[in-house]
Amino acid sequence: MRHLAEFDDTICAISTAAGEGAIAIIRLSGEKSVDLAAKYIRMGKKQLTGIDPNYQQFARFEYQDEIIDEVMVTRFAAPKSYTGEDMVEIACHGSIFIQHRILQMLVSAGARVARPGEFTQRAFMNGKMDLSQAEAVADLISSRNRMAHKVAMRQMKGEFSSKLEHLRSRLMDFTSLIELELDFSEEDVEFADRTQLFELLKEVDEEVRSLSKSFELGNAIKNGIPIAIVGEPNVGKSTLLNRLLNEDRAIVSEIAGTTRDVIEDTMVIDGYEFRFIDTAGIRESSDEIESKGIELALQKVSKARVVIYLFDARADEKPIKKALERIRAKAGAGMPIILVANKTDLLEQTDKNYEEYFLDEQVLSISAKENRGVETLIQLLVKEGTRGLENEDQILVTNIRHVEALHHIHEGIERITEGLENQLPGDLLSFEIRQVLDHIADITGQTITPDDVLGHIFKNFCIGK
Amino acid sequence: MRHLAEFDDTICAISTAAGEGAIAIIRLSGEKSVDLAAKYIRMGKKQLTGIDPNYQQFARFEYQDEIIDEVMVTRFAAPKSYTGEDMVEIACHGSIFIQHRILQMLVSAGARVARPGEFTQRAFMNGKMDLSQAEAVADLISSRNRMAHKVAMRQMKGEFSSKLEHLRSRLMDFTSLIELELDFSEEDVEFADRTQLFELLKEVDEEVRSLSKSFELGNAIKNGIPIAIVGEPNVGKSTLLNRLLNEDRAIVSEIAGTTRDVIEDTMVIDGYEFRFIDTAGIRESSDEIESKGIELALQKVSKARVVIYLFDARADEKPIKKALERIRAKAGAGMPIILVANKTDLLEQTDKNYEEYFLDEQVLSISAKENRGVETLIQLLVKEGTRGLENEDQILVTNIRHVEALHHIHEGIERITEGLENQLPGDLLSFEIRQVLDHIADITGQTITPDDVLGHIFKNFCIGK
Repeated sequence: MRHLAEFDDTICAISTAAGEGAIAIIRLSGEKSVDLAAKYIRMGKKQLTGIDPNYQQFARFEYQDEIIDEVMVTRFAAPKSYTGEDMVEIACHGSIFIQHRILQMLVSAGARVARPGEFTQRAFMNGKMDLSQAEAVADLISSRNRMAHKVAMRQMKGEFSSKLEHLRSRLMDFTSLIELELDFSEEDVEFADRTQLFELLKEVDEEVRSLSKSFELGNAIKNGIPIAIVGEPNVGKSTLLNRLLNEDRAIVSEIAGTTRDVIEDTMVIDGYEFRFIDTAGIRESSDEIESKGIELALQKVSKARVVIYLFDARADEKPIKKALERIRAKAGAGMPIILVANKTDLLEQTDKNYEEYFLDEQVLSISAKENRGVETLIQLLVKEGTRGLENEDQILVTNIRHVEALHHIHEGIERITEGLENQLPGDLLSFEIRQVLDHIADITGQTITPDDVLGHIFKNFCIGK
Repeated sequence: MRHLAEFDDTICAISTAAGEGAIAIIRLSGEKSVDLAAKYIRMGKKQLTGIDPNYQQFARFEYQDEIIDEVMVTRFAAPKSYTGEDMVEIACHGSIFIQHRILQMLVSAGARVARPGEFTQRAFMNGKMDLSQAEAVADLISSRNRMAHKVAMRQMKGEFSSKLEHLRSRLMDFTSLIELELDFSEEDVEFADRTQLFELLKEVDEEVRSLSKSFELGNAIKNGIPIAIVGEPNVGKSTLLNRLLNEDRAIVSEIAGTTRDVIEDTMVIDGYEFRFIDTAGIRESSDEIESKGIELALQKVSKARVVIYLFDARADEKPIKKALERIRAKAGAGMPIILVANKTDLLEQTDKNYEEYFLDEQVLSISAKENRGVETLIQLLVKEGTRGLENEDQILVTNIRHVEALHHIHEGIERITEGLENQLPGDLLSFEIRQVLDHIADITGQTITPDDVLGHIFKNFCIGK
């Protein structure tokens, strides 16, 4: 237990999604969970306190002879529960009235409605998981695509934590040696090999930089791979966007009876989520009245991971190539740009052939209006957009709080390195290393984390988790 | 088991409300539930088949070394489960991605996505509950107010069924005696006392009529107590309606963190739901352009349980009284009409005093605009609208299918009574009584119910129940 936390109150919440369903789950956690629930739970001759932990038992939830619901009830005994405390789970009929009534009864018996993430916060406080794992729970719940899910799952399993823990313990060894030197300060000995420390710092810093850098990728995975569609006014950008978004390839569409998760201007294909940048502009203003044209588009390019450059198949060579040149300059070397000639349906034999302009490059011919070539474009998008994402061994940082901590670690390491070069005395060196150790511990929550920081971390959780 | 039903397929569904939550529950039911789930469930050395029924066990849901989620899994062994079949319940993190992924995996292993209500249909088929109880499950889940919940709960507990069963068994006794007479037909004996049968039929018919009549009340409880707001154009009906609907007294409002269940044009007060009739008219057309005035309002009066007659506090006596007279004529003796003088804020001392027009009657003075007197009106609405609803012993019929069956029973009883009076031969009498017995059994599902009828009954259920 990291915080020697004492929770004398018992929290409760509806843990399933809001609204009407076949079943809803109401959870209690805290010392008095069983006592509070027992006030309303009737199970013939048995008592809630008497049933085995983890055993789902049929019961009636009653209030003064009125049956509120027939439920399945389970008690969990500390520390073998999600939060590490005594818990009770009530599975009731998913009527909104029943859900709220049961919650109300529990509150009137003395439970408190849990704040968002408070169950997980208690799990962390009681040492069931570290802070980075707790944060991964929220990411896992909000994961909408396969990659985001995978990243969150790995973090929840503790891979990120154990990597940091490994770096931390090696640094810790050095600090101990340096601090030992202080005890023998009059004898001017060096237990800690400065050259080895120097090497270690370099290694840690590389690791930290690589983790920091992974944030961009991690973010793309969490929020969708950013795609920019750019092109002159009236080349059919909004028609293409609608085609792409209406493609019926979302993960769940093949299962009858499941609701589709429609998220504005993102699409999930093969488990990857793609997010179209700044489509508000495309959608709100029709192409015709879009006045700033390519200038505005260049801003999107820098935020993208893949750029679709759309042009009219009937257009002249010069302006197309000129615009493309500017986009390429903005995009930089690494960014894939997909050249797409639209409106091929309007192309007449007498028109100049756009393919001749791009002899050396691949140009995709489509007709967004007639839905021709769009499928090929999607395949290309997936191929270009997901390149390098499937690196199985890389740990991805997806949390801005972690990035900040990593940044502090990097700064600290620079100070220590500088100190080593300047023959900084052992006590000052030790102080700097301890700062870095603290920043590492910030991520996993091994140091005492102030309440306001914890509050901030957990406030974005679902209620009931 | 009523149908000797053989289900060789295993069904699965997300049983919690649609959307993102802390936890979601995915259920499987059928012979192969455990085998199908076991393909993906990993729990260290243990096997899903080896764990005790009803015990919630921590496990990983894995697919080819990829962890889809960390879950709690429970198996239920037939016949001790909701459906009476082998079942598995998987409690996963409530990410939409995870929910759908798990469902997808189970489907690809051979499960079938359940139709709405199919779990409960199986429970009925396997003799876990009768048809009327099964229908009550759907009502219970969709109950939005205390009374609807109470009625559904009583029906689920089987009170309606046992009342019908009692009538049915007494009628059955008579049929047996009449059919016994047929065996002795040459001896012209009468085992069944015709006078007693006559009495019994009268008794059954009274019960059936009372149940039929309760439908109106039952419906008011299920869908809200109908309230009509009527009055001349421009008296402030839409302002009052908005005031009433915006009153912050919904059942759940005192619990922080629970979402309020906002249902257009209904309000829940003290557990009762009130529904305003035809408010579309009030809301869409502003009072000023409402042309047909009181004529249109009279149509609402006949559908209401309480009428609010709203008039301008500054108006003349004659038209107010004339309109009220017509409303009273339409409403009939039993219906409460609440007289409300609005716009008291605009009243000047020199104005005629409307209270003098109604010396013998109670008039409520309000200002909808300034929100004065609205609270008193609400209290009055609750008092008048719920009068007689709290009769604890009355069984209320809320299902149109049951009303139809009751109607058939009533017709059958009329035919039998007529037959008795006309000395109908025993075999024809017995035939008629059997018809009535069948209609009673239709409600509880004791007769073989055709598949299309069952399909119709269960199609309005939630998925996953």
